[in-house]
Amino acid sequence: MTAAGPEPFGRRLTAAMDRYGPLCVGIDPHTSLLARWGLPEDASGVREFSLRTVEALTGVVGVVKPQAAFFEQFGSAGVAALEETVAACRAAGLVCVVDAKRGDIGSTMAGYAQAFVGKDSALAGDAVTVTPYLGFGSLDPLIADARSTGRGVFVLALTSNPEGAQVQHARDRDGMSVAAQIAASAAAANADELAAGEPLGSVGLVVGATVGSAPRDLGMDLAAVGGPMLAPGLGAQGAGITEIRSVFAGAERAVLPSSSREILSAGPDRENLADAARRVQAGLQDLRGGRCDQQL
Amino acid sequence: MTAAGPEPFGRRLTAAMDRYGPLCVGIDPHTSLLARWGLPEDASGVREFSLRTVEALTGVVGVVKPQAAFFEQFGSAGVAALEETVAACRAAGLVCVVDAKRGDIGSTMAGYAQAFVGKDSALAGDAVTVTPYLGFGSLDPLIADARSTGRGVFVLALTSNPEGAQVQHARDRDGMSVAAQIAASAAAANADELAAGEPLGSVGLVVGATVGSAPRDLGMDLAAVGGPMLAPGLGAQGAGITEIRSVFAGAERAVLPSSSREILSAGPDRENLADAARRVQAGLQDLRGGRCDQQL
Repeated sequence: MTAAGPEPFGRRLTAAMDRYGPLCVGIDPHTSLLARWGLPEDASGVREFSLRTVEALTGVVGVVKPQAAFFEQFGSAGVAALEETVAACRAAGLVCVVDAKRGDIGSTMAGYAQAFVGKDSALAGDAVTVTPYLGFGSLDPLIADARSTGRGVFVLALTSNPEGAQVQHARDRDGMSVAAQIAASAAAANADELAAGEPLGSVGLVVGATVGSAPRDLGMDLAAVGGPMLAPGLGAQGAGITEIRSVFAGAERAVLPSSSREILSAGPDRENLADAARRVQAGLQDLRGGRCDQQL
Repeated sequence: MTAAGPEPFGRRLTAAMDRYGPLCVGIDPHTSLLARWGLPEDASGVREFSLRTVEALTGVVGVVKPQAAFFEQFGSAGVAALEETVAACRAAGLVCVVDAKRGDIGSTMAGYAQAFVGKDSALAGDAVTVTPYLGFGSLDPLIADARSTGRGVFVLALTSNPEGAQVQHARDRDGMSVAAQIAASAAAANADELAAGEPLGSVGLVVGATVGSAPRDLGMDLAAVGGPMLAPGLGAQGAGITEIRSVFAGAERAVLPSSSREILSAGPDRENLADAARRVQAGLQDLRGGRCDQQL
Protein backbone atom coordinates (compact mmCIF):
# COMPACT_ATOMS: atom_id res chain seq x y z
CA MET A 1 0.00 0.00 0.00
CA THR A 2 3.01 2.29 -0.23
CA ALA A 3 3.04 4.87 -2.99
CA ALA A 4 5.81 2.89 -4.70
CA GLY A 5 3.97 -0.45 -4.54
CA PRO A 6 1.92 -1.99 -7.33
CA GLU A 7 -1.63 -0.75 -7.86
CA PRO A 8 -3.88 -2.98 -5.71
CA PHE A 9 -6.14 -5.50 -7.42
CA GLY A 10 -9.35 -4.11 -5.93
CA ARG A 11 -8.62 -0.69 -7.39
CA ARG A 12 -7.80 -2.10 -10.82
CA LEU A 13 -10.89 -4.31 -10.85
CA THR A 14 -13.11 -1.40 -9.82
CA ALA A 15 -11.70 0.68 -12.67
CA ALA A 16 -12.43 -2.14 -15.13
CA MET A 17 -16.01 -2.51 -13.87
CA ASP A 18 -16.53 1.28 -13.90
CA ARG A 19 -15.39 1.39 -17.50
CA TYR A 20 -17.04 -1.68 -19.01
CA GLY A 21 -19.62 -2.86 -16.51
CA PRO A 22 -19.65 -5.82 -14.16
CA LEU A 23 -19.12 -8.85 -16.36
CA CYS A 24 -16.50 -11.56 -16.28
CA VAL A 25 -16.42 -13.79 -19.35
CA GLY A 26 -15.25 -17.30 -18.58
CA ILE A 27 -12.76 -18.73 -21.08
CA ASP A 28 -13.82 -22.39 -20.91
CA PRO A 29 -12.50 -24.26 -23.96
CA HIS A 30 -14.76 -27.22 -23.31
CA THR A 31 -14.40 -30.00 -25.86
CA SER A 32 -17.97 -29.46 -27.08
CA LEU A 33 -17.15 -25.80 -27.75
CA LEU A 34 -13.92 -26.70 -29.54
CA ALA A 35 -15.98 -28.93 -31.83
CA ARG A 36 -18.52 -26.17 -32.38
CA TRP A 37 -15.76 -23.74 -33.32
CA GLY A 38 -14.20 -26.31 -35.66
CA LEU A 39 -11.02 -26.57 -33.60
CA PRO A 40 -9.04 -29.71 -32.73
CA GLU A 41 -9.45 -31.30 -29.31
CA ASP A 42 -5.89 -30.70 -28.20
CA ALA A 43 -3.60 -28.02 -26.79
CA SER A 44 -3.48 -26.17 -30.13
CA GLY A 45 -7.28 -26.06 -30.11
CA VAL A 46 -7.58 -24.55 -26.62
CA ARG A 47 -4.82 -22.08 -27.50
CA GLU A 48 -6.59 -20.91 -30.66
CA PHE A 49 -9.96 -20.81 -28.90
CA SER A 50 -8.61 -18.73 -26.03
CA LEU A 51 -6.56 -16.28 -28.09
CA ARG A 52 -9.51 -15.65 -30.42
CA THR A 53 -11.77 -15.08 -27.42
CA VAL A 54 -9.32 -12.59 -25.91
CA GLU A 55 -9.07 -10.78 -29.23
CA ALA A 56 -12.86 -10.60 -29.66
CA LEU A 57 -13.43 -9.32 -26.13
CA THR A 58 -10.68 -6.71 -26.05
CA GLY A 59 -12.27 -3.28 -25.67
CA VAL A 60 -15.65 -4.93 -25.10
CA VAL A 61 -15.49 -6.31 -21.54
CA GLY A 62 -13.18 -5.65 -18.63
CA VAL A 63 -12.60 -9.07 -17.07
CA VAL A 64 -12.04 -12.62 -18.33
CA LYS A 65 -11.57 -15.89 -16.44
CA PRO A 66 -9.70 -18.77 -18.07
CA GLN A 67 -10.61 -22.07 -16.38
CA ALA A 68 -7.40 -24.00 -15.67
CA ALA A 69 -8.93 -27.49 -15.92
CA PHE A 70 -9.73 -27.09 -19.62
CA PHE A 71 -6.07 -26.32 -20.28
CA GLU A 72 -4.61 -28.92 -17.89
CA GLN A 73 -6.61 -31.67 -19.53
CA PHE A 74 -4.04 -31.44 -22.33
CA GLY A 75 -1.08 -31.59 -19.95
CA SER A 76 1.93 -29.28 -20.07
CA ALA A 77 1.14 -28.24 -23.65
CA GLY A 78 -2.29 -27.12 -22.43
CA VAL A 79 -0.70 -25.24 -19.54
CA ALA A 80 1.58 -23.50 -22.05
CA ALA A 81 -1.60 -22.39 -23.88
CA LEU A 82 -2.87 -21.00 -20.57
CA GLU A 83 0.35 -19.02 -20.21
CA GLU A 84 -0.14 -17.59 -23.70
CA THR A 85 -3.73 -16.71 -22.83
CA VAL A 86 -2.62 -14.88 -19.68
CA ALA A 87 0.02 -13.00 -21.69
CA ALA A 88 -2.58 -12.06 -24.31
CA CYS A 89 -4.88 -10.69 -21.60
CA ARG A 90 -2.02 -8.65 -20.19
CA ALA A 91 -1.20 -7.23 -23.62
CA ALA A 92 -4.88 -6.41 -24.20
CA GLY A 93 -5.39 -4.73 -20.82
CA LEU A 94 -7.99 -7.29 -19.75
CA VAL A 95 -8.19 -8.17 -16.06
CA CYS A 96 -7.49 -11.92 -15.97
CA VAL A 97 -8.80 -14.21 -13.20
CA VAL A 98 -7.15 -17.64 -13.43
CA ASP A 99 -9.78 -20.09 -12.18
CA ALA A 100 -7.52 -22.74 -10.67
CA LYS A 101 -9.11 -23.39 -7.25
CA ARG A 102 -5.79 -24.30 -5.67
CA GLY A 103 -5.30 -24.93 -1.97
CA ASP A 104 -2.70 -26.55 0.28
CA ILE A 105 -0.59 -25.70 3.33
CA GLY A 106 2.86 -24.40 4.17
CA SER A 107 5.61 -24.67 1.61
CA THR A 108 3.22 -26.28 -0.87
CA MET A 109 0.88 -23.30 -0.65
CA ALA A 110 3.94 -21.13 -1.23
CA GLY A 111 4.57 -23.10 -4.43
CA TYR A 112 1.05 -22.38 -5.68
CA ALA A 113 1.49 -18.74 -4.64
CA GLN A 114 4.64 -18.50 -6.77
CA ALA A 115 2.79 -20.12 -9.69
CA PHE A 116 -0.37 -18.00 -9.62
CA VAL A 117 0.53 -14.68 -7.99
CA GLY A 118 4.33 -14.77 -8.18
CA LYS A 119 6.17 -11.74 -9.48
CA ASP A 120 7.54 -13.22 -12.71
CA SER A 121 5.30 -16.25 -13.20
CA ALA A 122 3.91 -16.86 -16.66
CA LEU A 123 0.85 -18.56 -15.09
CA ALA A 124 -0.06 -15.58 -12.92
CA GLY A 125 -2.94 -13.45 -14.13
CA ASP A 126 -4.43 -10.60 -12.09
CA ALA A 127 -6.18 -12.90 -9.61
CA VAL A 128 -6.60 -16.58 -8.82
CA THR A 129 -9.40 -18.66 -7.31
CA VAL A 130 -8.55 -20.80 -4.27
CA THR A 131 -10.29 -23.43 -2.14
CA PRO A 132 -10.40 -23.28 1.67
CA TYR A 133 -10.99 -26.92 2.76
CA LEU A 134 -7.76 -26.57 4.78
CA GLY A 135 -9.17 -23.45 6.46
CA PHE A 136 -9.09 -19.81 5.41
CA GLY A 137 -5.87 -19.35 7.40
CA SER A 138 -4.07 -21.84 5.15
CA LEU A 139 -4.46 -19.30 2.33
CA ASP A 140 -2.68 -16.50 4.20
CA PRO A 141 0.74 -16.97 2.53
CA LEU A 142 -0.83 -16.77 -0.92
CA ILE A 143 -2.95 -13.76 0.04
CA ALA A 144 0.15 -11.97 1.36
CA ASP A 145 2.05 -12.69 -1.85
CA ALA A 146 -0.91 -11.55 -3.97
CA ARG A 147 -1.01 -8.22 -2.16
CA SER A 148 2.69 -7.73 -2.66
CA THR A 149 2.33 -8.15 -6.43
CA GLY A 150 -0.92 -6.18 -6.75
CA ARG A 151 -2.98 -9.29 -7.41
CA GLY A 152 -6.25 -10.61 -6.03
CA VAL A 153 -7.61 -13.85 -4.59
CA PHE A 154 -11.14 -15.23 -4.86
CA VAL A 155 -11.91 -17.75 -2.10
CA LEU A 156 -14.59 -20.39 -2.69
CA ALA A 157 -17.33 -19.65 -0.18
CA LEU A 158 -20.81 -20.76 -1.23
CA THR A 159 -21.44 -22.70 -4.42
CA SER A 160 -24.64 -23.59 -6.20
CA ASN A 161 -24.07 -27.33 -6.65
CA PRO A 162 -26.28 -29.29 -4.23
CA GLU A 163 -23.37 -31.42 -2.94
CA GLY A 164 -21.63 -28.30 -1.63
CA ALA A 165 -23.97 -28.03 1.34
CA GLN A 166 -22.27 -31.02 3.00
CA VAL A 167 -19.27 -28.83 3.73
CA GLN A 168 -20.39 -25.22 3.26
CA HIS A 169 -23.56 -25.38 5.37
CA ALA A 170 -21.93 -27.18 8.33
CA ARG A 171 -21.62 -25.10 11.51
CA ASP A 172 -19.15 -24.64 14.34
CA ARG A 173 -20.00 -24.92 18.06
CA ASP A 174 -21.35 -21.40 18.07
CA GLY A 175 -23.67 -22.15 15.18
CA MET A 176 -21.69 -20.20 12.60
CA SER A 177 -21.71 -21.82 9.18
CA VAL A 178 -18.53 -22.61 7.26
CA ALA A 179 -19.66 -20.25 4.47
CA ALA A 180 -20.23 -17.43 6.97
CA GLN A 181 -16.81 -18.04 8.54
CA ILE A 182 -15.11 -17.80 5.16
CA ALA A 183 -16.95 -14.53 4.51
CA ALA A 184 -15.95 -13.17 7.93
CA SER A 185 -12.32 -14.17 7.38
CA ALA A 186 -12.33 -12.40 4.01
CA ALA A 187 -13.79 -9.28 5.62
CA ALA A 188 -10.99 -9.29 8.19
CA ALA A 189 -8.41 -9.73 5.45
CA ASN A 190 -9.76 -6.70 3.56
CA ALA A 191 -10.09 -4.35 6.53
CA ASP A 192 -6.73 -2.58 6.17
CA GLU A 193 -7.14 -1.90 2.46
CA LEU A 194 -10.65 -0.51 2.95
CA ALA A 195 -9.47 1.64 5.85
CA ALA A 196 -6.80 3.02 3.52
CA GLY A 197 -9.53 4.13 1.13
CA GLU A 198 -9.46 1.40 -1.50
CA PRO A 199 -12.84 0.84 -3.22
CA LEU A 200 -12.50 -2.96 -2.86
CA GLY A 201 -10.09 -5.21 -0.98
CA SER A 202 -7.88 -7.77 -2.71
CA VAL A 203 -9.66 -10.76 -1.17
CA GLY A 204 -12.89 -11.72 -2.90
CA LEU A 205 -15.30 -14.60 -2.60
CA VAL A 206 -16.85 -17.03 -5.04
CA VAL A 207 -20.59 -17.15 -4.39
CA GLY A 208 -22.94 -18.78 -6.89
CA ALA A 209 -25.46 -16.44 -8.52
CA THR A 210 -28.11 -19.16 -8.17
CA VAL A 211 -27.84 -19.84 -4.41
CA GLY A 212 -31.01 -17.90 -3.60
CA SER A 213 -31.55 -17.12 0.07
CA ALA A 214 -28.68 -19.34 1.25
CA PRO A 215 -26.33 -16.46 2.20
CA ARG A 216 -28.97 -15.09 4.58
CA ASP A 217 -29.98 -18.54 5.82
CA LEU A 218 -26.34 -19.29 6.59
CA GLY A 219 -25.62 -15.95 8.26
CA MET A 220 -23.15 -14.69 5.65
CA ASP A 221 -22.60 -10.94 5.84
CA LEU A 222 -21.71 -10.33 2.19
CA ALA A 223 -22.10 -6.56 2.51
CA ALA A 224 -19.30 -6.57 5.11
CA VAL A 225 -16.76 -8.50 3.04
CA GLY A 226 -15.47 -5.46 1.18
CA GLY A 227 -13.96 -7.60 -1.59
CA PRO A 228 -15.28 -8.54 -5.03
CA MET A 229 -17.89 -11.29 -5.37
CA LEU A 230 -17.24 -13.56 -8.32
CA ALA A 231 -20.65 -14.99 -9.15
CA PRO A 232 -20.84 -17.91 -11.58
CA GLY A 233 -24.24 -19.10 -12.74
CA LEU A 234 -25.35 -16.26 -14.98
CA GLY A 235 -27.33 -17.11 -18.10
CA ALA A 236 -27.17 -20.79 -19.01
CA GLN A 237 -27.32 -21.78 -15.37
CA GLY A 238 -30.39 -19.68 -14.72
CA ALA A 239 -29.52 -16.48 -12.88
CA GLY A 240 -30.39 -13.02 -14.13
CA ILE A 241 -30.02 -9.60 -12.56
CA THR A 242 -33.04 -10.16 -10.30
CA GLU A 243 -31.49 -13.28 -8.77
CA ILE A 244 -28.14 -11.53 -8.39
CA ARG A 245 -29.73 -8.57 -6.60
CA SER A 246 -31.39 -10.97 -4.21
CA VAL A 247 -28.32 -13.08 -3.46
CA PHE A 248 -25.98 -10.11 -3.06
CA ALA A 249 -28.28 -7.56 -1.42
CA GLY A 250 -26.11 -4.82 0.09
CA ALA A 251 -23.02 -5.85 -1.91
CA GLU A 252 -24.34 -5.23 -5.43
CA ARG A 253 -21.52 -2.92 -6.46
CA ALA A 254 -18.96 -5.60 -5.60
CA VAL A 255 -20.56 -8.35 -7.70
CA LEU A 256 -18.72 -9.67 -10.75
CA PRO A 257 -21.14 -12.05 -12.49
CA SER A 258 -19.47 -14.63 -14.66
CA SER A 259 -20.84 -16.08 -17.87
CA SER A 260 -19.20 -18.60 -20.16
CA ARG A 261 -21.12 -20.89 -22.46
CA GLU A 262 -23.89 -18.45 -23.36
CA ILE A 263 -21.29 -16.08 -24.78
CA LEU A 264 -18.71 -18.54 -26.10
CA SER A 265 -21.24 -20.53 -28.08
CA ALA A 266 -21.78 -17.39 -30.22
CA GLY A 267 -18.25 -17.85 -31.60
CA PRO A 268 -16.04 -18.37 -33.43
CA ASP A 269 -17.12 -15.31 -35.41
CA ARG A 270 -15.44 -12.38 -33.72
CA GLU A 271 -18.29 -9.90 -34.02
CA ASN A 272 -20.91 -12.44 -32.95
CA LEU A 273 -18.85 -13.25 -29.89
CA ALA A 274 -18.39 -9.57 -29.00
CA ASP A 275 -22.09 -8.92 -29.53
CA ALA A 276 -23.07 -11.79 -27.25
CA ALA A 277 -20.80 -10.35 -24.54
CA ARG A 278 -22.26 -6.87 -25.07
CA ARG A 279 -25.82 -8.22 -24.71
CA VAL A 280 -25.06 -10.02 -21.44
CA GLN A 281 -23.16 -7.00 -20.16
CA ALA A 282 -26.00 -4.62 -21.04
CA GLY A 283 -28.33 -6.70 -18.90
CA LEU A 284 -26.07 -6.12 -15.90
CA GLN A 285 -25.55 -2.35 -16.07
CA ASP A 286 -28.17 -1.51 -13.48
CA LEU A 287 -26.43 -3.70 -10.92
CA ARG A 288 -23.88 -0.98 -10.17
CA GLY A 289 -26.37 1.85 -10.22
CA GLY A 290 -26.36 2.88 -13.83
CA ARG A 291 -24.56 2.97 -17.11
CA CYS A 292 -20.83 2.44 -17.33
CA ASP A 293 -18.29 4.90 -18.74
CA GLN A 294 -18.05 3.07 -22.03
CA GLN A 295 -21.68 3.75 -22.85
CA LEU A 296 -21.92 7.32 -21.64
CA MET B 1 -14.48 -54.76 -12.21
CA THR B 2 -14.90 -56.98 -15.27
CA ALA B 3 -12.22 -59.55 -15.93
CA ALA B 4 -11.15 -57.53 -18.96
CA GLY B 5 -10.90 -54.23 -17.07
CA PRO B 6 -7.72 -52.67 -15.69
CA GLU B 7 -6.38 -53.96 -12.38
CA PRO B 8 -7.96 -51.81 -9.65
CA PHE B 9 -5.82 -49.27 -7.81
CA GLY B 10 -6.53 -50.74 -4.36
CA ARG B 11 -5.22 -54.11 -5.47
CA ARG B 12 -2.09 -52.63 -7.03
CA LEU B 13 -1.39 -50.47 -4.00
CA THR B 14 -1.83 -53.44 -1.66
CA ALA B 15 0.64 -55.46 -3.72
CA ALA B 16 3.17 -52.60 -3.52
CA MET B 17 2.76 -52.29 0.25
CA ASP B 18 2.97 -56.10 0.68
CA ARG B 19 6.20 -56.12 -1.25
CA TYR B 20 7.99 -53.05 0.06
CA GLY B 21 6.16 -51.97 3.17
CA PRO B 22 3.83 -49.03 3.79
CA LEU B 23 5.80 -45.96 2.82
CA CYS B 24 5.08 -43.21 0.34
CA VAL B 25 8.03 -40.92 -0.41
CA GLY B 26 6.96 -37.40 -1.30
CA ILE B 27 8.80 -35.90 -4.27
CA ASP B 28 8.83 -32.27 -3.13
CA PRO B 29 11.45 -30.31 -5.09
CA HIS B 30 11.32 -27.39 -2.68
CA THR B 31 13.68 -24.58 -3.56
CA SER B 32 15.70 -25.15 -0.37
CA LEU B 33 16.21 -28.79 -1.40
CA LEU B 34 17.19 -27.80 -4.94
CA ALA B 35 19.87 -25.56 -3.42
CA ARG B 36 21.03 -28.36 -1.12
CA TRP B 37 21.33 -30.72 -4.07
CA GLY B 38 23.21 -28.09 -6.09
CA LEU B 39 20.46 -27.81 -8.69
CA PRO B 40 19.13 -24.65 -10.35
CA GLU B 41 15.88 -23.13 -9.16
CA ASP B 42 13.99 -23.70 -12.38
CA ALA B 43 12.13 -26.38 -14.32
CA SER B 44 15.36 -28.16 -15.25
CA GLY B 45 16.24 -28.33 -11.55
CA VAL B 46 12.93 -29.89 -10.48
CA ARG B 47 13.18 -32.30 -13.41
CA GLU B 48 16.66 -33.44 -12.45
CA PHE B 49 15.73 -33.64 -8.76
CA SER B 50 12.66 -35.76 -9.45
CA LEU B 51 14.22 -38.13 -11.97
CA ARG B 52 17.19 -38.75 -9.65
CA THR B 53 14.80 -39.44 -6.77
CA VAL B 54 12.80 -41.90 -8.84
CA GLU B 55 16.01 -43.64 -9.88
CA ALA B 56 17.30 -43.88 -6.32
CA LEU B 57 14.01 -45.23 -4.97
CA THR B 58 13.34 -47.82 -7.67
CA GLY B 59 13.38 -51.26 -6.10
CA VAL B 60 13.57 -49.66 -2.65
CA VAL B 61 10.05 -48.35 -1.96
CA GLY B 62 6.70 -49.03 -3.56
CA VAL B 63 5.01 -45.64 -3.68
CA VAL B 64 6.04 -42.05 -4.45
CA LYS B 65 4.07 -38.81 -4.42
CA PRO B 66 5.17 -35.87 -6.55
CA GLN B 67 3.70 -32.62 -5.23
CA ALA B 68 2.23 -30.66 -8.15
CA ALA B 69 2.79 -27.19 -6.65
CA PHE B 70 6.58 -27.52 -6.73
CA PHE B 71 6.38 -28.21 -10.47
CA GLU B 72 3.67 -25.65 -11.28
CA GLN B 73 5.70 -22.89 -9.66
CA PHE B 74 7.84 -23.03 -12.82
CA GLY B 75 4.85 -22.88 -15.15
CA SER B 76 4.29 -25.14 -18.14
CA ALA B 77 7.97 -26.13 -18.22
CA GLY B 78 7.60 -27.33 -14.63
CA VAL B 79 4.43 -29.23 -15.53
CA ALA B 80 6.38 -30.89 -18.36
CA ALA B 81 8.91 -32.01 -15.71
CA LEU B 82 6.00 -33.49 -13.72
CA GLU B 83 4.94 -35.42 -16.83
CA GLU B 84 8.47 -36.79 -17.18
CA THR B 85 8.45 -37.76 -13.51
CA VAL B 86 5.16 -39.62 -13.90
CA ALA B 87 6.53 -41.42 -16.95
CA ALA B 88 9.70 -42.36 -15.05
CA CYS B 89 7.60 -43.81 -12.21
CA ARG B 90 5.61 -45.84 -14.71
CA ALA B 91 8.77 -47.18 -16.33
CA ALA B 92 10.19 -48.04 -12.89
CA GLY B 93 7.05 -49.80 -11.65
CA LEU B 94 6.57 -47.28 -8.82
CA VAL B 95 3.01 -46.47 -7.76
CA CYS B 96 2.71 -42.71 -8.35
CA VAL B 97 0.29 -40.49 -6.40
CA VAL B 98 0.07 -37.03 -7.99
CA ASP B 99 -0.56 -34.64 -5.10
CA ALA B 100 -2.59 -32.00 -6.91
CA LYS B 101 -5.55 -31.43 -4.55
CA ARG B 102 -7.86 -30.50 -7.42
CA GLY B 103 -11.58 -29.93 -7.03
CA ASP B 104 -14.40 -28.33 -9.03
CA ILE B 105 -17.83 -29.20 -10.40
CA GLY B 106 -19.45 -30.46 -13.56
CA SER B 107 -17.59 -30.12 -16.84
CA THR B 108 -14.65 -28.50 -15.05
CA MET B 109 -14.29 -31.51 -12.77
CA ALA B 110 -14.38 -33.62 -15.92
CA GLY B 111 -11.44 -31.58 -17.23
CA TYR B 112 -9.41 -32.34 -14.12
CA ALA B 113 -10.47 -35.99 -14.37
CA GLN B 114 -9.13 -36.13 -17.91
CA ALA B 115 -5.88 -34.49 -16.76
CA PHE B 116 -5.19 -36.65 -13.72
CA VAL B 117 -6.93 -39.99 -14.26
CA GLY B 118 -7.63 -39.85 -18.01
CA LYS B 119 -6.75 -42.81 -20.17
CA ASP B 120 -3.95 -41.26 -22.20
CA SER B 121 -3.01 -38.25 -20.09
CA ALA B 122 0.69 -37.59 -19.53
CA LEU B 123 -0.15 -35.98 -16.17
CA ALA B 124 -2.01 -39.01 -14.82
CA GLY B 125 -0.14 -41.16 -12.33
CA ASP B 126 -1.76 -44.06 -10.46
CA ALA B 127 -3.79 -41.84 -8.15
CA VAL B 128 -4.51 -38.17 -7.48
CA THR B 129 -5.37 -36.16 -4.39
CA VAL B 130 -8.56 -34.06 -4.48
CA THR B 131 -10.26 -31.50 -2.25
CA PRO B 132 -13.95 -31.71 -1.25
CA TYR B 133 -14.93 -28.11 -0.38
CA LEU B 134 -17.63 -28.46 -3.07
CA GLY B 135 -18.90 -31.61 -1.35
CA PHE B 136 -17.83 -35.23 -1.74
CA GLY B 137 -20.50 -35.68 -4.43
CA SER B 138 -18.76 -33.13 -6.66
CA LEU B 139 -15.90 -35.63 -6.97
CA ASP B 140 -18.08 -38.44 -8.32
CA PRO B 141 -17.25 -37.89 -12.02
CA LEU B 142 -13.53 -38.04 -11.30
CA ILE B 143 -13.93 -41.11 -9.07
CA ALA B 144 -15.90 -42.88 -11.80
CA ASP B 145 -13.23 -42.06 -14.38
CA ALA B 146 -10.48 -43.22 -12.01
CA ARG B 147 -12.16 -46.59 -11.52
CA SER B 148 -12.53 -47.02 -15.27
CA THR B 149 -8.78 -46.53 -15.78
CA GLY B 150 -7.69 -48.55 -12.72
CA ARG B 151 -6.62 -45.44 -10.82
CA GLY B 152 -7.23 -44.19 -7.30
CA VAL B 153 -8.36 -40.99 -5.59
CA PHE B 154 -7.31 -39.65 -2.19
CA VAL B 155 -9.85 -37.20 -0.77
CA LEU B 156 -8.70 -34.59 1.75
CA ALA B 157 -10.49 -35.41 5.00
CA LEU B 158 -8.70 -34.32 8.16
CA THR B 159 -5.48 -32.35 8.07
CA SER B 160 -3.01 -31.48 10.80
CA ASN B 161 -2.78 -27.73 10.21
CA PRO B 162 -4.63 -25.83 12.95
CA GLU B 163 -6.58 -23.70 10.43
CA GLY B 164 -8.22 -26.82 9.00
CA ALA B 165 -10.57 -27.17 11.96
CA GLN B 166 -12.61 -24.17 10.73
CA VAL B 167 -14.00 -26.34 7.94
CA GLN B 168 -13.24 -29.96 8.85
CA HIS B 169 -14.57 -29.87 12.43
CA ALA B 170 -17.83 -28.12 11.56
CA ARG B 171 -20.96 -30.24 11.94
CA ASP B 172 -24.28 -30.72 10.19
CA ARG B 173 -27.70 -30.51 11.86
CA ASP B 174 -27.39 -34.07 13.13
CA GLY B 175 -24.04 -33.29 14.74
CA MET B 176 -21.96 -35.16 12.17
CA SER B 177 -18.63 -33.47 11.44
CA VAL B 178 -17.51 -32.62 7.91
CA ALA B 179 -14.50 -34.93 8.33
CA ALA B 180 -16.77 -37.81 9.41
CA GLN B 181 -19.09 -37.17 6.46
CA ILE B 182 -16.18 -37.32 4.02
CA ALA B 183 -15.07 -40.61 5.60
CA ALA B 184 -18.61 -42.02 5.39
CA SER B 185 -18.93 -40.95 1.74
CA ALA B 186 -15.62 -42.67 0.94
CA ALA B 187 -16.82 -45.84 2.69
CA ALA B 188 -19.97 -45.84 0.58
CA ALA B 189 -17.90 -45.31 -2.58
CA ASN B 190 -15.71 -48.31 -1.74
CA ALA B 191 -18.49 -50.73 -0.79
CA ASP B 192 -18.87 -52.43 -4.17
CA GLU B 193 -15.17 -53.07 -4.64
CA LEU B 194 -14.81 -54.50 -1.14
CA ALA B 195 -17.87 -56.71 -1.64
CA ALA B 196 -16.20 -58.00 -4.80
CA GLY B 197 -13.24 -59.11 -2.72
CA GLU B 198 -10.75 -56.32 -3.35
CA PRO B 199 -8.31 -55.78 -0.45
CA LEU B 200 -8.77 -51.99 -0.62
CA GLY B 201 -11.18 -49.74 -2.48
CA SER B 202 -10.04 -47.12 -5.00
CA VAL B 203 -11.18 -44.18 -2.86
CA GLY B 204 -8.77 -43.24 -0.09
CA LEU B 205 -8.54 -40.39 2.36
CA VAL B 206 -5.84 -37.94 3.36
CA VAL B 207 -5.63 -37.88 7.16
CA GLY B 208 -2.67 -36.27 8.89
CA ALA B 209 -0.48 -38.59 10.94
CA THR B 210 -0.25 -35.93 13.65
CA VAL B 211 -3.97 -35.31 14.24
CA GLY B 212 -4.00 -37.32 17.49
CA SER B 213 -7.44 -38.16 18.84
CA ALA B 214 -9.28 -35.91 16.36
CA PRO B 215 -10.71 -38.78 14.24
CA ARG B 216 -12.41 -40.24 17.34
CA ASP B 217 -13.43 -36.83 18.66
CA LEU B 218 -15.01 -36.04 15.30
CA GLY B 219 -16.76 -39.41 14.94
CA MET B 220 -14.77 -40.57 11.89
CA ASP B 221 -15.02 -44.30 11.35
CA LEU B 222 -11.68 -44.83 9.61
CA ALA B 223 -11.84 -48.62 10.01
CA ALA B 224 -15.01 -48.61 7.90
CA VAL B 225 -13.60 -46.60 4.98
CA GLY B 226 -12.04 -49.59 3.24
CA GLY B 227 -9.73 -47.40 1.17
CA PRO B 228 -6.11 -46.41 1.70
CA MET B 229 -5.21 -43.69 4.21
CA LEU B 230 -2.52 -41.36 2.92
CA ALA B 231 -0.93 -39.97 6.08
CA PRO B 232 1.44 -37.02 5.76
CA GLY B 233 3.32 -35.86 8.83
CA LEU B 234 5.80 -38.68 9.33
CA GLY B 235 9.26 -37.81 10.57
CA ALA B 236 10.08 -34.11 10.27
CA GLN B 237 6.54 -33.17 11.26
CA GLY B 238 6.63 -35.33 14.37
CA ALA B 239 4.69 -38.56 13.87
CA GLY B 240 6.18 -42.02 14.39
CA ILE B 241 4.61 -45.45 14.32
CA THR B 242 3.09 -44.97 17.79
CA GLU B 243 1.20 -41.85 16.69
CA ILE B 244 0.10 -43.56 13.48
CA ARG B 245 -1.25 -46.56 15.38
CA SER B 246 -3.21 -44.24 17.60
CA VAL B 247 -4.68 -42.09 14.81
CA PHE B 248 -5.59 -45.04 12.56
CA ALA B 249 -6.61 -47.64 15.15
CA GLY B 250 -8.54 -50.37 13.33
CA ALA B 251 -7.32 -49.27 9.89
CA GLU B 252 -3.57 -49.84 10.35
CA ARG B 253 -3.21 -52.09 7.32
CA ALA B 254 -4.66 -49.39 5.09
CA VAL B 255 -2.29 -46.63 6.19
CA LEU B 256 0.24 -45.23 3.73
CA PRO B 257 2.46 -42.86 5.74
CA SER B 258 4.15 -40.20 3.65
CA SER B 259 7.58 -38.74 4.29
CA SER B 260 9.39 -36.15 2.20
CA ARG B 261 12.03 -33.86 3.58
CA GLU B 262 13.61 -36.33 6.03
CA ILE B 263 14.41 -38.63 3.12
CA LEU B 264 15.05 -36.10 0.36
CA SER B 265 17.55 -34.11 2.41
CA ALA B 266 19.79 -37.22 2.37
CA GLY B 267 20.32 -36.68 -1.37
CA PRO B 268 21.58 -36.09 -3.95
CA ASP B 269 23.80 -39.14 -3.42
CA ARG B 270 21.81 -42.08 -4.70
CA GLU B 271 22.79 -44.59 -2.04
CA ASN B 272 22.32 -42.11 0.80
CA LEU B 273 18.84 -41.33 -0.49
CA ALA B 274 17.94 -45.00 -0.80
CA ASP B 275 19.32 -45.70 2.68
CA ALA B 276 17.28 -42.89 4.20
CA ALA B 277 14.15 -44.34 2.60
CA ARG B 278 15.04 -47.83 3.84
CA ARG B 279 15.49 -46.54 7.39
CA VAL B 280 12.11 -44.79 7.43
CA GLN B 281 10.47 -47.82 5.84
CA ALA B 282 12.01 -50.22 8.37
CA GLY B 283 10.43 -48.22 11.17
CA LEU B 284 7.00 -48.80 9.63
CA GLN B 285 7.09 -52.57 9.01
CA ASP B 286 5.20 -53.50 12.15
CA LEU B 287 2.27 -51.32 11.07
CA ARG B 288 0.98 -54.03 8.74
CA GLY B 289 1.63 -56.90 11.10
CA GLY B 290 5.18 -57.86 10.26
CA ARG B 291 7.94 -57.85 7.72
CA CYS B 292 7.29 -57.27 4.06
CA ASP B 293 8.12 -59.67 1.23
CA GLN B 294 11.24 -57.76 0.26
CA GLN B 295 12.89 -58.46 3.60
CA LEU B 296 11.79 -62.09 4.08
